[in-house]
Amino acid sequence: LHPERVSVVLVTPRNPLNIGAAARAMSNFGFFDLRLVQPYDVAYREARSAVGAGRVLEESRVFDDLAAAVADATLVVGTTSVGHRELVHPLLRLEKGASRLRKHDGRLALLFGSEKFGLGNDDLAHCHWLMRIPTREEHGSMNLGQSVAVCLYELIRDGRAPAPLRTLGRKEKPAASADEERITELLLDALRQSGYVPPRASASAELKVRRLIRRMRLTAGDAEIWQGMLRQILWKIGYPEG
Amino acid sequence: LHPERVSVVLVTPRNPLNIGAAARAMSNFGFFDLRLVQPYDVAYREARSAVGAGRVLEESRVFDDLAAAVADATLVVGTTSVGHRELVHPLLRLEKGASRLRKHDGRLALLFGSEKFGLGNDDLAHCHWLMRIPTREEHGSMNLGQSVAVCLYELIRDGRAPAPLRTLGRKEKPAASADEERITELLLDALRQSGYVPPRASASAELKVRRLIRRMRLTAGDAEIWQGMLRQILWKIGYPEG
Repeated sequence: LHPERVSVVLVTPRNPLNIGAAARAMSNFGFFDLRLVQPYDVAYREARSAVGAGRVLEESRVFDDLAAAVADATLVVGTTSVGHRELVHPLLRLEKGASRLRKHDGRLALLFGSEKFGLGNDDLAHCHWLMRIPTREEHGSMNLGQSVAVCLYELIRDGRAPAPLRTLGRKEKPAASADEERITELLLDALRQSGYVPPRASASAELKVRRLIRRMRLTAGDAEIWQGMLRQILWKIGYPEG
Repeated sequence: LHPERVSVVLVTPRNPLNIGAAARAMSNFGFFDLRLVQPYDVAYREARSAVGAGRVLEESRVFDDLAAAVADATLVVGTTSVGHRELVHPLLRLEKGASRLRKHDGRLALLFGSEKFGLGNDDLAHCHWLMRIPTREEHGSMNLGQSVAVCLYELIRDGRAPAPLRTLGRKEKPAASADEERITELLLDALRQSGYVPPRASASAELKVRRLIRRMRLTAGDAEIWQGMLRQILWKIGYPEG
């Protein structure tokens, strides 16, 4: 899939914020060909004149009907976030649909319906198949800008991207953040009292210690041991003759 | 990963629309524990009172500081859409990070920074590691509601979801939409003139024909043949004695 061969087609969008959000997600993920079919005029003008509208909106094109908007596409795919009423079209979950799209060699038009009604039957008849964003059945309907973001993300997604990361070496239960924070406070207290950091430790020293503790990836058991040790040390610092 | 063990934490969000959009994406994807750290007061009230705010916003909780908001979490992960400045934290692309999160057994706090600045150094110090949404370098910064949608989608993503679909059986170039539309028009014309459909064909008959043609997944070569055949048929209908 070449992003420059993908057209994002918004059918009768009504809300300038959604148009702007769709354009922004396109730019975020490297797609630049935005087409609008009969957008609500005021909304389109408002979106284009918004601060930071950027290249995608500037270069966007308006069409009178969907047939014209997708005329150069060799594959037209509609998106929906609700389970479709009459299943006249093949309907794929986004994960699978996108993996097919990635193999498509030619111009792709990806259709998004209006905020209120999604794609109508007239629009769907122009589609070769449909993709469904796997939302909950009880609350399927997604915001337009978010639908565009999720679909385009899935298109550029790279499951084989490299990713080294140090892992917890042990099987024990990890410590809760509250424990890590308590250890941070105790250690800072000890460091202040011992003169390792000034009495009113700088914010940057605090950050360093907080990160240091987080990097340890303590288990719940070890976190308890550390708190005991530090409390004892603090007690000794407070009562050197004790 | 159990969605009920995931807390979405918005740190100092400023815009009621973004708060609402984050909550909506959560509900779409089945996450319900929303926490806000020092949200802009007016924005939070506005978001809660918006039409259709729903359960997620109703049950959301506000915290005075991040430490309190993540106290019960055993894993705290920050999100960012820009390549991070000082790499003191392990930084994973979303695809890889999410696959780790899915294996986490315990409460997870997923942090999102404010619209303008993202997560600050003070916030990052509470994180065990960071995830980066793979946006373009030239335009990395994402809208808050869209970031939440993309991250949660990745968490519930199921690459093994079933998906049968009829494919193009041949290796030839697929027909462009404009060709399919031309065939649709020609065939409808022939059907009207031949009395198969009434002269002023109903919209539903038109839809049926349009879908019929799309389902054929014609190659560019076959599309041309079809146009030729239909034109000839139409000519014959027009000049029955010819």
